[in-house]
Amino acid sequence: VDATSARGRYLEDLAVGDAAERSFTVAEGDLAAFAAVSHDTNPIHLDEAYAQTTVFKGRIAHGMMLASYISAVLGTELPGPGSVYAGQTLNFKRAVRIGDTVVVRVAVKAIDEKTGVVTLTTVCSLGRKAMLDGEAKVLVPRRADGAGAA
Amino acid sequence: VDATSARGRYLEDLAVGDAAERSFTVAEGDLAAFAAVSHDTNPIHLDEAYAQTTVFKGRIAHGMMLASYISAVLGTELPGPGSVYAGQTLNFKRAVRIGDTVVVRVAVKAIDEKTGVVTLTTVCSLGRKAMLDGEAKVLVPRRADGAGAA
Repeated sequence: VDATSARGRYLEDLAVGDAAERSFTVAEGDLAAFAAVSHDTNPIHLDEAYAQTTVFKGRIAHGMMLASYISAVLGTELPGPGSVYAGQTLNFKRAVRIGDTVVVRVAVKAIDEKTGVVTLTTVCSLGRKAMLDGEAKVLVPRRADGAGAA
Repeated sequence: VDATSARGRYLEDLAVGDAAERSFTVAEGDLAAFAAVSHDTNPIHLDEAYAQTTVFKGRIAHGMMLASYISAVLGTELPGPGSVYAGQTLNFKRAVRIGDTVVVRVAVKAIDEKTGVVTLTTVCSLGRKAMLDGEAKVLVPRRADGAGAA
């Protein structure tokens, strides 16, 4: 990545209603990969025989993997690089499975001009169903702070 | 994992104040691995030259990687396998870097006997500093529901 291009939106460039959307498909190998890096080896994600005995009747993706898709959209698209993640609420509503293609949509809900904190709604959907929703709080630099400030 | 042993605590086994703690060290390769599985390729995590130009003065771990450590403790230790992740709040307070060893502590704050929802405080610390805190909500099966119910 070219450092000079790795620059998301400034606070002045954001308006309530601005949105970004991206789709993610859960590959079978992603569950083992996420388990390895997170150390979250809960068998519901890794052991099909065990998972079949649960209410889910099969392996499900880590909830935090879906949450990380939200982070991906925030950190690469809206507001993009340079913004600082301050908070996130997560409501896990339905389980996502191997092969599912989910759509993450983030939308600017509020902008605090004084603090630079931007609140975004964050939803991860499968078809018309919300699988995970919540809100993000992101600190967004001002253009006046300079391009290299954050 | 033996399906019969993959069984965390039941609601009846939990009491306010119960806690679990585990430490995690962020290896350099973890940042690229987390970026690959999450698709979160924000250069603050991957590009040292870019990261040096930011307020962080170097690469930092994905906030959601720390959040996934919380999920690891919830999903493997307290309450452990069989519990269902219903929600999490995350307050990102300080950046974690390559080589840092953080300690995640989860503690039972409240138990709703009617709904089976258990609230836990969740803190990720480096030394005496909280790097990430928040609360988890987890649905915990009752012993009466049967060992294979969740």
